This record gives sequence, structure tokens and C-alpha cells, in this order.
Amino acid sequence: MIKVGLVGGTGYTGSELLRLLALHPQVEICAVSSRNDEGTPVSSLFPALRKQVNLSFSQPTLKNLQHCDVVFFATPHGVCMQQARELIQANIRVIDLGADFRLKNLDEFQAWYKIPHTEPELNNQAVYGLVEAHREHLKKARLIGLPGCYPTAVQLALFPLLSSKTPLVDESFIIANCASGVSGAGRTASVPSLFSEAAENFKAYATSGHRHLPEIEQGLQTLSGRPCHVTFIPHLVPMVRGILATIVLRLTQAGKQYNFQSLYENHYANEFFVDVMPFGSQPETKFVRGSNFAKIAIHQPQNKDSLVILCVIDNLVKGAAGQAVQALNVCYDLPENLGLTQLPLCP
Amino acid sequence: MIKVGLVGGTGYTGSELLRLLALHPQVEICAVSSRNDEGTPVSSLFPALRKQVNLSFSQPTLKNLQHCDVVFFATPHGVCMQQARELIQANIRVIDLGADFRLKNLDEFQAWYKIPHTEPELNNQAVYGLVEAHREHLKKARLIGLPGCYPTAVQLALFPLLSSKTPLVDESFIIANCASGVSGAGRTASVPSLFSEAAENFKAYATSGHRHLPEIEQGLQTLSGRPCHVTFIPHLVPMVRGILATIVLRLTQAGKQYNFQSLYENHYANEFFVDVMPFGSQPETKFVRGSNFAKIAIHQPQNKDSLVILCVIDNLVKGAAGQAVQALNVCYDLPENLGLTQLPLCP
Amino acid sequence: MIKVGLVGGTGYTGSELLRLLALHPQVEICAVSSRNDEGTPVSSLFPALRKQVNLSFSQPTLKNLQHCDVVFFATPHGVCMQQARELIQANIRVIDLGADFRLKNLDEFQAWYKIPHTEPELNNQAVYGLVEAHREHLKKARLIGLPGCYPTAVQLALFPLLSSKTPLVDESFIIANCASGVSGAGRTASVPSLFSEAAENFKAYATSGHRHLPEIEQGLQTLSGRPCHVTFIPHLVPMVRGILATIVLRLTQAGKQYNFQSLYENHYANEFFVDVMPFGSQPETKFVRGSNFAKIAIHQPQNKDSLVILCVIDNLVKGAAGQAVQALNVCYDLPENLGLTQLPLCP
Amino acid sequence: MIKVGLVGGTGYTGSELLRLLALHPQVEICAVSSRNDEGTPVSSLFPALRKQVNLSFSQPTLKNLQHCDVVFFATPHGVCMQQARELIQANIRVIDLGADFRLKNLDEFQAWYKIPHTEPELNNQAVYGLVEAHREHLKKARLIGLPGCYPTAVQLALFPLLSSKTPLVDESFIIANCASGVSGAGRTASVPSLFSEAAENFKAYATSGHRHLPEIEQGLQTLSGRPCHVTFIPHLVPMVRGILATIVLRLTQAGKQYNFQSLYENHYANEFFVDVMPFGSQPETKFVRGSNFAKIAIHQPQNKDSLVILCVIDNLVKGAAGQAVQALNVCYDLPENLGLTQLPLCP
Repeated sequence: MIKVGLVGGTGYTGSELLRLLALHPQVEICAVSSRNDEGTPVSSLFPALRKQVNLSFSQPTLKNLQHCDVVFFATPHGVCMQQARELIQANIRVIDLGADFRLKNLDEFQAWYKIPHTEPELNNQAVYGLVEAHREHLKKARLIGLPGCYPTAVQLALFPLLSSKTPLVDESFIIANCASGVSGAGRTASVPSLFSEAAENFKAYATSGHRHLPEIEQGLQTLSGRPCHVTFIPHLVPMVRGILATIVLRLTQAGKQYNFQSLYENHYANEFFVDVMPFGSQPETKFVRGSNFAKIAIHQPQNKDSLVILCVIDNLVKGAAGQAVQALNVCYDLPENLGLTQLPLCP
Repeated sequence: MIKVGLVGGTGYTGSELLRLLALHPQVEICAVSSRNDEGTPVSSLFPALRKQVNLSFSQPTLKNLQHCDVVFFATPHGVCMQQARELIQANIRVIDLGADFRLKNLDEFQAWYKIPHTEPELNNQAVYGLVEAHREHLKKARLIGLPGCYPTAVQLALFPLLSSKTPLVDESFIIANCASGVSGAGRTASVPSLFSEAAENFKAYATSGHRHLPEIEQGLQTLSGRPCHVTFIPHLVPMVRGILATIVLRLTQAGKQYNFQSLYENHYANEFFVDVMPFGSQPETKFVRGSNFAKIAIHQPQNKDSLVILCVIDNLVKGAAGQAVQALNVCYDLPENLGLTQLPLCP
Repeated sequence: MIKVGLVGGTGYTGSELLRLLALHPQVEICAVSSRNDEGTPVSSLFPALRKQVNLSFSQPTLKNLQHCDVVFFATPHGVCMQQARELIQANIRVIDLGADFRLKNLDEFQAWYKIPHTEPELNNQAVYGLVEAHREHLKKARLIGLPGCYPTAVQLALFPLLSSKTPLVDESFIIANCASGVSGAGRTASVPSLFSEAAENFKAYATSGHRHLPEIEQGLQTLSGRPCHVTFIPHLVPMVRGILATIVLRLTQAGKQYNFQSLYENHYANEFFVDVMPFGSQPETKFVRGSNFAKIAIHQPQNKDSLVILCVIDNLVKGAAGQAVQALNVCYDLPENLGLTQLPLCP
Repeated sequence: MIKVGLVGGTGYTGSELLRLLALHPQVEICAVSSRNDEGTPVSSLFPALRKQVNLSFSQPTLKNLQHCDVVFFATPHGVCMQQARELIQANIRVIDLGADFRLKNLDEFQAWYKIPHTEPELNNQAVYGLVEAHREHLKKARLIGLPGCYPTAVQLALFPLLSSKTPLVDESFIIANCASGVSGAGRTASVPSLFSEAAENFKAYATSGHRHLPEIEQGLQTLSGRPCHVTFIPHLVPMVRGILATIVLRLTQAGKQYNFQSLYENHYANEFFVDVMPFGSQPETKFVRGSNFAKIAIHQPQNKDSLVILCVIDNLVKGAAGQAVQALNVCYDLPENLGLTQLPLCP
């Protein structure tokens, strides 16, 4: 059994991770931390986990975590970088669901996250945890920076396209219109996330710049080896879970002749969690809700020089906790879908 | 008092029109028709209108409508064109909330609506009812084709921009990502509009082509005098009312210097129903819910060559019934906001 | 014009009151206060009110309020009782939408609200603002304690029944199962009111005792002159607005013969805002949303000794801000529905 | 492997059953029928099941079902009784998720379901599939009539109470106020189930009588051996899944002394799927969403002679498909929770 600890167990990604780990056949949950809820049974905060997770919250000290093989951080940015070094030195793997180890360029980190990065060396070693792109590197990773929820959807949607040697689309003007359920804002009391504000409502937000933008551009450029400029516009949908990325691109001359459906089907042929739907399908966030799957569909609207890629994931699963378990499975050479076979809850 | 009739009173645009007309100080509702509900009190179908609308549904015959000054059609396409001629000959104004008199190019009409247009001559006379663009023509109109809901939002969002003599944006690649509440699909029983399908869900639809696309392109080209190509991607939001148009454009060299905020504020300075919010605002559909207002905001994300225009309306009010009343007021030289001063229901 | 001030303008009842007052033809809004937002334009917090309410928030000092004829308090309990005396002495009417002047028994006040009442004398003079029950007393009231939202629905549902001299139901076992939209919890950041908590969810709350219980029992007993025991169970519905009271009663022998439909229709025959629907109707909260109406329906299920009364209101309108305006109209001898004719927003 | 067939695979209970059976380690799905969709891949209708259920819909003929060990019917009432005999004669177990074999009194069946029962003899043999009450009988059952969703919640909530020899509550006046998500109305296109009707809305329905009432009373009386009269009032909640039963009872003298918490905890001590929460808890439907669990809590409001029992289930799982799998496991002497360990999706 793999002994795991969880730092930051009171948010939605933390509780989702507990939902998945509680039934993972090779995992034993040894510690769940919360600075403010020490001593409180996990199931008091999350009655859905009654009789499944019998731990109480503890402080995230090395002492409490030292028997773990792996520690997940489901914390705001800035927390994991404070503890990662001592854990890794204690021979514990660290998987950060937060933002500390996503960006290679630490100037960009500071510009977007408004704090200096205190672990540049660790950051260099960290592996970006998008399994479908970095599976081989993950196998030996001691420190994993898991992608953000939007970057997961956008990158899965664009990887096959950008892996072409000849640019198939105008990579200087990529439009990523994305929409997320409200759980993406976390389990923190705030007026804009109140039911009465978010329900029966739709809006864009962070239109002038969102922290996931540099992560998306980094991922795309790493893959294509070419500069990629993305206009990324997130929206807030009155639903709890789910992300839809609606990506619009302008085809190059080379792109106008291309069979994108084949490209995508081939690219993802061996990926358990990525489903390339038939050409012209309309993926719905509900088709993946509660599961670790991504579904992708391709459209070429009648205006023949545009290409539309649609991709749906559950932001809390493939966009966070599920992807964390998937990375864990890769690290331990387990079947990649172990503990992750849940089918979408639909309707 | 203006005597009005309503053909097609059992859908959402019809009932919304009744909500507005019932309190309009210069209007008397004389007939509400439904082919299938003859004799049923309107308030049986719509208990919210009990004691406010005391009519029963009748057949939409000329006999039942002949005492009207104006007849609104809140019907599927194809219905109004069958009756418009006889009503106009009887000196009755016709305002169609459906699609019969929106498109000037009847080949396009047939291509998108799958029926031939039987009234080309009337169609030539019809005035497109987007008041902010065609106020003067509306004053003497005998036949008005009201815009669709999406075209209202997209055109209001783009008119100031396209009225420039020098193109400020690449008009060959306009991205109109739009999202609508479910009431846009009407009050017709269908599986995709069921609560259990649409709730907790988000999807694009009609990605390969939607009937509102030719209407949008017609409107933009009419105004700019130049070809405009739009990639229009509608989405379905789990809310009842509201449309957000998120429009992304690529700036031309001329555009990069431009002060768009001033352009918009000046363009709409005298429009009661159009509110240009401060630069960088995030309009929410809830800010206009239940009202005839449109709210517009402008963004220039850090990627400096893109421009983002956001526009929200209530699809059933400014996108349908409210715009119909606004057009009526213009026709009768009444204050344009008479009966339309309702403030948004928020939250 | 009646000059009004509003203390506590940043919550949902406050903003709803502004929505109504902004269009009231006999009202001028002179001051809107918020301790924390002094100087902020009201429309910054509530963009739906842009160009309609042009004031900025001010401190709720006597100086800022002294030119008002009436001051509304849309504040948590304990606030109004601190200021009411000085305002009344300055010849300003006070209408409290909070809980300070609802309960006649101040021991109960302290038991439920956990603070001592500091104005027993004023409390004696205060008139309970349920217009349909106390219209005559309201005409000369200087201080009005408006009912809570649940008590409004439950009392309207039960008044005709309890006004009978012979008990028609077992008044010792009245079941008031009620359900409210989330706006009832106010515009205060809290985890249980988050979208992700409240959406796709249903629960009872405060099952062991809710502050509105003593108010309900006081109102029923005052009317009937007999002790009334209510089991009051509030529930939280994943919607923004609306209350449904589902009241179950056991018929006495006298009750089994009674024509309750006539009783209710007669009782409310002259009430503009109370609609007694046909026997066996199913009122929906949407039938009154955004309006000041209450709709009531009566059922006698086959198990012949039970009686079911259903009553719907919009908690923010008839349950708060609308009722406040209705009381204002009564005080100033204006038509009771002035500024309150809005029809329900449905769907 | 148990070979199972499903008649009626296009509704919500059918697709939910497929979600559960697809991952059941001892089940092979051999046939899924739909009269109208013959030849259509199951995953075309339910893209969430792509690559998990690879069958196409077939006709529900004996020929197509004869290789099955068990056939589930997820059909409207009246369908299963037409086919049950020939299947049972072919030595196939039949588990009806519909209403054909729930009521022992066939006069009541006809009165409520408006068709005569054509299989009285089979009905006599049928076992009522509420596992927690009839586990022993189910082990050898050839024909199982699964409970309705509301009756499951109400009976689980009341069984411990009614198993007492001395009546602890007034069994002649049991109030069962229940509320269900909209999926309970099925995947049939109908106006009242449209998103725009059901969202942002709350209402009671079938107040004068619902088909689940006789089933509830039958179940309670069978257990207690005494007449039980229930006032059952279902409500429609704007959510997809979940039922909350709020049951109010009047204590007898014997009941006033009773420790109900112990009674319930003891009664359900060995039930995997029933969680008796701490006294005074507030179960939420989200605590069981997507899972086969029921959660129960007990309250005694200050009005000391009333008792409140709250019970939540997921109507599509414990109230339908999950209970079906649970019954299957009992029939085949498998661990009762095999394939049913999913934890609630929360949030």
C-alpha cells in the first residue's frame, strides 16, 4: 500500500482527492491536514465521507507526514514551496495541485502570483504533471507540479494540432474561450461565489489576464517549439463542476487541406482518459462529470478558414484530483486508471 | 389606446410580451391567439398573469384580429408570412418576432430555414427592427422584422466599431462566442431542454452553423459597407434568461491606436437602453435580467493586438419582447421607454 | 415627494428596496448608507442600478438622514433599535425590515436573538407591518416592524382559517413546512451559501428552532385569541428567490364540514396582492417572482381529515422590500400598489 | 458472470443502471432494449457511456433476452407485467424498477395506475425489493418489484419507529413532506420538466394524491401491523438528483420518553447503505448524490410533542438503479455492496 498524506484537506480539490483515494485499492490515507481544523474529524466537514475516511485533520508538520510515501498539496500557491524541500529530503514524493511548480519562468511566476518563488532549484527539477504529455518524465519524478484546470483542457485540446512540424493554424492568434463551473473558485466564502450571485447568471471574468494564461502558453510553446499567442477568456457558468474549452483558430494554407479528425484520433489512440468524439460532435460537461475523462470534438464551420476544437473535463477530477491520482499511478507503475474508472454522473 | 393583438401567445416570447403589454399605459390587448388552446384563459396557462390578462386564447383569424392597430407574431418562422399580407391590407401594422422578415437575401432564407419565402415583395418593404440602428425607418414601417436574440447582442456590440471608415479590426475573422439561457429554445417540450439535461451542464451547439449567422453578417455588412466574416459559436448556459456575447477581434494597425471606450460612449450617448460600462468592466447577464437594457464593456487583453467586446441582454426582453415594445413605441411616436422602465431583477 | 433614506443598502433586501423605490413615482431617495462603503457609488456595487440610483453610500448618521421623511432599515437585528429613537424624535418615520420590532414579548426576543432589547417602550408603540392584517394601525404608525419572510407567507396562509370563532383545525399541531431560496440568507460571504454548496442540493435547516417561529406563533395567537403550536421546518432550495409554505393541519369536526375555498376567497376579496387560486391549484414560486403578490391554494387530500394550505411569495419582495413599500404607501395614504405593480418574471 | 438484460434503456433509471452495471465485476450486460431506437448504439444516446457500453439497442423480444440470467425492466408501469411470465418461465429472474409488482392490493393498483393488473398470480409471488426490509425473501425471489423512489426514503425513515410494539407516534396522522429532483419525472419531453419551467422554482405537486401513497401506507402497515395514515406531499426541487423526506409525527405518551437515536442506530447497525447521523444533524441530498447510501437524522423540536425524521437518498440510485443492483447482489449471494461502493459526488 502506498501511504499518502494530504496537506490542505478542506477545499474542493482536497475533498475530491479524498473521495478518489478512499477507494483506491493501493492507497492508504495516513494524514489529512488543515491548519484551522486540527482535531476535527474529516467527516464532520464532509459528511459524504462518513465511514469512509475516519481520520481527523492534523497540522501539516513533518512529524505528521513523515510516514507517508507521497504528500499531495491541495493548497493555495505559496504553501507547497515552503514544505516541499524537507519532504523531498525525507524521501517523500510531493505532488502539488497548486500553482507553485507549474511555471518554468520564475519572473512570470512572480508577475502573476505576486510573490517571489523561493525554490528555483526545486522548480527546475519539478515535472509538469499533464500525464498525456509528460508520462515518461513523471515515472521518476520526485516533485510534480500538476496543471491548472483550464490549462489541462486547453492543452489537451491543442496538443495534436501543435505537434505538427508545419504550422496548421495561425499560432499567433489562438482564441481560447473557456467556461468553468463555480467549484473552480474553491470552497472559500466570497460574495461573487454566493449562490445568489452566480446562479441564473453568466459572465466573463479576468478578461484582461488570468494566471492560467502563461501556463497555457508555456505548454503550447514547449510542445510546438514556436511562439504561441493565446487570447484566453474564462467565463463563470452557473454549475458546480465542469470546464468547456471552445478554441477557435485560423487555418493556414497547410491547415486547409488537413484531416484533423485523423490527427486527433491517432494522437490519442492509446490514451484511456481522452475520448476523441466523432467529427462535429458537441461534447457536454455532463458527459465527463465526476470522472477523469476528457472528451474532444472538432468542427470546421462553413466559414472554411476557421477551426474549432471543443474539449470538456471535470475541473475537480481531470482538472485536479483525478489527474493527481493518475500521476500517482504513473509514478508507482500501477495501471494508469487504477481507482479512476468511475463513469460520469449523467444526468 | 393602441389596440394590439398577439399571434402565438403560448411561448416564452409571447408570454413575455403579455407581461410587458399588460402594464403599458398606451396599449390595450385585444386578442391573444393559440391554434391549440382556443377558449382557454390565458391565465390558466400563465398563472403569473392572473387578474392582469383576462382574455382567452382565440384563433388567429382576420376576423379576430381586425380591430387591432398592431399585431405581433411570436410564432415559429413561416407563420407570419402567411398572414402578414392580409393584415397589412386591413391597415394593421405587423411586428414579427419570428424570422420571416429578417433576411434580405431570400436564397439565404431558404438555405437556413428550409422553406421558400412566399412574400418577397413584403420582405422588401419590411424594416429590420433593431431600433438603435434603424430608428428613422421604423417610424413609418408597416411591417417590422425584429432581430433574433443573438443578432441583437452581437450587433449592438459591434456597431460602433464597424461604423468606422477605416477598418479598426480584421473584419474577415470576427469571433462571436455567445451563450444563452435555455429559454432561448422556447417553451416546446424537447429532451435537450429538459431540466435534467440542461442543468449542471454547459455545451456549445450548432457549432457548424446557426440560423442567426447570416442575419449577423447581413447586419454588420450593411453598416460597414464591407464584407464581414463571423465565426459564431452559440453555447447553452444552465440559466433561464440572458445572453452574453464575447466577441474577439484582431486589431488592424489603425485599430491599435484607437480609443475604443470613447468611440462606444459617444456612439451610444443618447441611447436609453444601451449602457457602455467603464473600460474593463465585466457585464453579467443578471445586470439586465427582466429589463430591456443592454450593457457593453470593452477589454484589451495584454496580448495587445486583440480586442474583446462583451455585451449582455435579456434574450426574452431586449432580444425579443422588449425590443418589440420599443419598436411599437417608435412607430407611435411615444417615449421610447414607455412601459419599458423595469429595472433588472438582481439577484 | 416623500424623501426616504435607507440604512443598510448593501444587502439583498436593501438593493431590492432600491430597485422598487427608484421607480416609485412619489419617492425621492435621499440617502443610502453603508458603514463600510462610504463614498462608493451605489451603482458600483449594484451595476444593475447604473443610471437609476446616482447616490453614493454614506454613513448612517442623523446628519445624513435628517432631511428624510422616512428611513428604512435593511440591517441585521440590533441596528435599528440603536437609531430608531433619535430618528423618531426628529419626526422621521422608521420602517425596520430587520427583526428589532417584531416580537412583543421581549424575553422571547432575547432568547432567540441573543441580545437584550434596549427599546422596550418603542417596541410597545411599534406596529407589526403585515399590511393585510394591520392596515388600520399602520396608517398612523411612526415605527413599523416588518414581518420576516417566512412569517409573511405562513400568516397569510393561515389568517382566514384562524379568524374563525370555532377552531376548524387542531391548533395545537400545525405543521409549517417551508422552503426558501438562498437569497434569504443574505449577501454575506459564507460557505453554506456558496453556489457549490447550495446548488444541486436540498436540505432542511434550523429544524430544532428558527427565529421566525415565535413571530409566527405570536401572529397566529394574536389573531385567533387561542394558543397555536407550530412545528416550523425551513428548507433551503437551490434557487435565488421565493418561498413556499406547505402547511398541513388536522381538521376538527367543525372543520370537516367547512368550505375553505369560500372562506379564503371572501377573506381576501379586496386584497390586491393576495390571490386565492382555484381549489386544488399548485402555486409555484415563479408565479410571484419579482412581484409583491402572494398566491394561495387549498387542498384536501383523500385522507379526509387533513387540510393543506400552500402559499408562495417572493421573499425579497412581499417578504421584505415590497412589503416595506406597501406599508409606506399605507402610511402616506397612497394607492397601496403604487410602485408595486410589477408582474412576476416568469419564466 | 451474471448475464443481464435491460428492457427500457433510454430513460434515466435505465442509463443509471448501465452506469452501475458497466463496472460491476460479476455482471455482463448482454442486451439493452428500446422499442424506438433499435440499432442505435447505446453510446450515441448516452455519450457518457462511450467505450464502456458497446451494445446497440435491440427489441425486447424473448429471443433477444433468452440468454440472460436476469432481466431488469426500467419501463413505465404496464410493460413488465406483459413480459414477466414468459421470462420467468424461461428461468430468467425479473427485476422491475417500474410499478407493476409493488402493490399487493390490485384494486388499489387499478385505482392509482388506471389499468387492470393482468398478472395477479405473479404479483402474489413477487417480492418487494426494499432490501433493508425484505432481505431474506429476496434471496430466492424470481420476481422482484422494486420500491418507488419516495417510498424508499419514507420507509427507511420510518421502519425503526414503526417496528415498536407500542405505538410511539400517532400513526393516524403521519406527515411525509417530500421533495425530489427533476430526474424523478424521467427523460420524457414535457413542458413542466423543461429547464425554464423547473429552474428557479419550487412547488408542491400531486398534493391531492400521488401513486406512491398506497405503496408507502402498505409498507408501513405491513411492518407495524397497524393502520397508518400518511399525508404525503411531494415537491419538485430545481436540482437533478436527490430526495429529502421530511417526516413530522406527533409523539404518543410512550413516545415522549423514548430514545429515538438509539432505536435508529441499533436498527441500522448492520446496514452498509444506511447511515444514521448524529442526533440533530441536517442531511443534505448532496451527501448521497450518485451513491447508494441513505442518510437519516432525527430531531425533536422544542415543541416537545413532535418528532421529525429526515432522510436523503439519490432517487436514481438508492431510489432506483442502485437498489436494483443491491437486490441483484442479494439474489446471487454476492457482497451486498459489490459494484455499489461509489462515494457521493460532493460538491
